[in-house]
Amino acid sequence: MIVDDYKRALDKALDTMYTGEDRLSEAVRYALTGGKRLRGVLALISGRDVKSACAVEMVHAFSLIHDDLPCMDNDDFRRGKPSCHKQYGEALALLAGDLLLAEALGIEPGLAVSAGEIIYGQSLDMEFEKAETVTEKELLDMYSLKTASLFQAACAASETPGKRTQEMFYGHNFGMAFQITDDLLDYKTEKVGKKTLPLIIGEEAARAKAAEYVNKAARTAEKLENGKLLKELAQELIDRSK
Amino acid sequence: MIVDDYKRALDKALDTMYTGEDRLSEAVRYALTGGKRLRGVLALISGRDVKSACAVEMVHAFSLIHDDLPCMDNDDFRRGKPSCHKQYGEALALLAGDLLLAEALGIEPGLAVSAGEIIYGQSLDMEFEKAETVTEKELLDMYSLKTASLFQAACAASETPGKRTQEMFYGHNFGMAFQITDDLLDYKTEKVGKKTLPLIIGEEAARAKAAEYVNKAARTAEKLENGKLLKELAQELIDRSK
Repeated sequence: MIVDDYKRALDKALDTMYTGEDRLSEAVRYALTGGKRLRGVLALISGRDVKSACAVEMVHAFSLIHDDLPCMDNDDFRRGKPSCHKQYGEALALLAGDLLLAEALGIEPGLAVSAGEIIYGQSLDMEFEKAETVTEKELLDMYSLKTASLFQAACAASETPGKRTQEMFYGHNFGMAFQITDDLLDYKTEKVGKKTLPLIIGEEAARAKAAEYVNKAARTAEKLENGKLLKELAQELIDRSK
Repeated sequence: MIVDDYKRALDKALDTMYTGEDRLSEAVRYALTGGKRLRGVLALISGRDVKSACAVEMVHAFSLIHDDLPCMDNDDFRRGKPSCHKQYGEALALLAGDLLLAEALGIEPGLAVSAGEIIYGQSLDMEFEKAETVTEKELLDMYSLKTASLFQAACAASETPGKRTQEMFYGHNFGMAFQITDDLLDYKTEKVGKKTLPLIIGEEAARAKAAEYVNKAARTAEKLENGKLLKELAQELIDRSK
């Protein structure tokens, strides 16, 4: 299947990118290994080259490393293994994230806007944890920044303005659906204070919302190149939350 | 004096860049306030526009915020006030640094190489702290990455290759002299384990080394536009260490 081929191409490129024997390269290599490569695969399907799709995955890896740090979400595990700071210490993990961000934007400067949105979205997410109540709109706006933004940027591969807008619309809706289905997977075990859509509007309403975003993405996909594949990928998200 | 004018132009641009009322914008604004703006001033003198020189200062501010964090150098004070994480907490400080890096590279993607070098240099600096011995060569190589790299990038404003090389040579030597004179200012009060040039080769030899770099920078300055000013700025570094 073509998605697996795309994933393999990304794995190969990313796994052999940081070959240095120093500890920082080792930490970056560790953080880049594993994961579904969903953003990178979407980037490739949308027409980006491997290097550009790698930059998307590098921005994603940066955000995971920093989000996992003790002062942030304090997650000990990531991609089925100890998170970067558990394996290499906080200092090296912090620097590994910094390096991935810097080098990703060196490859693909157009990702800087999305990187800024991810960072701002993470600051809102942490603010919401301390807030007593958060509205559905506030939460979805945060999801748009923290999660959907990079999917949107990944898909925005075309240089033709009209087509690019369609790609962005697909990516945005895909990303929103992705975040909500992610919420549905583990919202019952989220840490105290963490705000998620199912927590705020209930599980069934959240499931309906995810389906709404999937449908928007699927309808947009029809107009795009590789539309059939993009449509399938969006529709598969629904199964994810079951 | 023209240097003061340049500094004022940078202060004005940087101080009014992040106007958001959210906590993240506040933390970024806080971290961007103060400082000598030496890198930005050199960038302006070398011919960069204000926006590009601001990007240089933003990369510098990013590195200061992250270097000051408890897991790194753990510095409570910066630019005569509490460091960013002392004022806003570690999470916001981390994100403020991330945002500055992302947005700086969005403005000036060419700074990505230098940003990577700064990050790698910081990882070496921390490694050296734990090392029993570090050679002069190893230390100077680390200074080249951690400090001189951004001065070099700041000065590399020309699009004419030959001229650009001269600018980079000036910036590199200026940056090396800057780091050593910085060492000389406070090496006696550095934390245990921290490796600095005066510690390794002695105060007098370090002073001579700084003068050597200053002379190289000053001689190169003569060939550049605004050479008189660049020469003066390099020579002023010597007084800094007294």
